[in-house]
Amino acid sequence: MLEDHRPSKASAARWSLYLRCLEGWHRDGLQTVASRQLAESLGLRDAQVRKDLLLLGHLGRSGVGYRTDELIQAIRQAMGLNRTWSALMVGAGNLSRALLRYRGFRERGFRVDGIVDIDPKLLGKEIEGLVISPLTLIPKLVKERGIEIGILAVPAEAAQSVADSLVTAGIKGLLNFAPVVLRLPNEVKIVNVDLTIQLEQLAFQIQMGLESEK
Amino acid sequence: MLEDHRPSKASAARWSLYLRCLEGWHRDGLQTVASRQLAESLGLRDAQVRKDLLLLGHLGRSGVGYRTDELIQAIRQAMGLNRTWSALMVGAGNLSRALLRYRGFRERGFRVDGIVDIDPKLLGKEIEGLVISPLTLIPKLVKERGIEIGILAVPAEAAQSVADSLVTAGIKGLLNFAPVVLRLPNEVKIVNVDLTIQLEQLAFQIQMGLESEK
Repeated sequence: MLEDHRPSKASAARWSLYLRCLEGWHRDGLQTVASRQLAESLGLRDAQVRKDLLLLGHLGRSGVGYRTDELIQAIRQAMGLNRTWSALMVGAGNLSRALLRYRGFRERGFRVDGIVDIDPKLLGKEIEGLVISPLTLIPKLVKERGIEIGILAVPAEAAQSVADSLVTAGIKGLLNFAPVVLRLPNEVKIVNVDLTIQLEQLAFQIQMGLESEK
Repeated sequence: MLEDHRPSKASAARWSLYLRCLEGWHRDGLQTVASRQLAESLGLRDAQVRKDLLLLGHLGRSGVGYRTDELIQAIRQAMGLNRTWSALMVGAGNLSRALLRYRGFRERGFRVDGIVDIDPKLLGKEIEGLVISPLTLIPKLVKERGIEIGILAVPAEAAQSVADSLVTAGIKGLLNFAPVVLRLPNEVKIVNVDLTIQLEQLAFQIQMGLESEK
C-alpha cells in the first residue's frame, strides 16, 4: 500500500459513521445508496464522502450508486472489523460494569475475555460471567486468551502503571477512559475517551441555538 | 453574526482539543503559543488550526503567536463554557454512578443537580449526595433547578419516552448514551455517545500498524 493511499484517522472516523447509516438502511431493505444520501444524513460534503469511499476501492457504479451490502463489507474489512477482537477490562468499578453490560461491543465483534482489578476484596468475584483476577495475572491472561486490546477504566493516578503492565504483556492497543495522557511506545495504539468533550460539544450547540434566537 | 462566520460542529470539536492542549501548557507556564504547536500536538494541518482560531477573532500577533490565557478564554467563551450548566441524570445504573463520580464534569462547569430513575426500589436512595427521584418529578426538577441538559443513561428501549418527557419539561439538550436514534424537535440539541465507535477506531489503528509491519 502506498503511503499516499493510507486512510487517515479522520477518514476512519467517518467510515464508522457511514457504517452506522448503511447498516440501518440495509436492515430497512435499501439495496443501493448514493454518496449524497450519506452526506446529507451526516451533514458532510458529498465530495468528502466520495473521497472517503474511494479509499475502499472502485465500488460505486455511475447512475446506480453503491451496493449497500458491498459498501458495508468493504468498510468492515478496511477497518479490521470482519474479525473478533479480544479485550481485557482493567478495573472493576461502575464504568467497567456498565461497559460489560453494553451489548454494542459484542455485536460489533469486541469480546471482553478477562477482567482485572487491584482491590483484593473484589478478586474471585464475578461480573457478567467473568472472574475478577489480580493485576499480576495480566501477562498470563493476555497470552493465554490472545488478548490484543486493553480497556482502561481505572482512576487517573493508576492508569500509567497499569498501561505499562499491559504494554509489557504484549497488548496492541488501549481504549483509555482515564483522564490522563499516557506515555506509550509508538507501536501501541491508543484511543482516549474524554466524556467531557461530548458535554462541551452539547453546550456549544445549545449556546449557538440560544444566540440564533436573539 | 453572519451565517458564513458561524463555527461548524467540526470547528467546535477541534476547539475542545485545543482547549485540552492549551490548559496543559498554561499549567506548565507557557505564556504564548503558535498555531503550529497545536497542529503538531494534534496531528492537524497548521492552516486548519489557524482557520479555527480566526473564528474566535483576531487574537494572534505576528512573530509572537497567541497568548495562551487569551486563547483559552476566547475558546471557553465561544463554546459557552464560561458559565455553569445544570444537568439532570436520567437513570441510576452503573453508567450513571460512574459519570457522577467523574470529576471532569464538575471541573468544566457541568453540575448534575438531580437524578431520576424508573425503578421504585431505588427511589429515595442517594448517589453522590443526590436523592433518586421518580420520572414524574422531571418537570418539577427541571423548572425549580434551572436544568438545561439531560444525560440519558438508560436502556435503548426506555430512551425515547424519557427523552419526550425531558423535551416537554423544557430541556435544551441531551447527552445520549443509549444506542438508539432519538426523534427530537429541531430546537433541542443532542450529542450521541457511541462507545463502540471508539473501539472501532482503535481496531483500525491496530490493523494499520499490523499491515505496515508486513
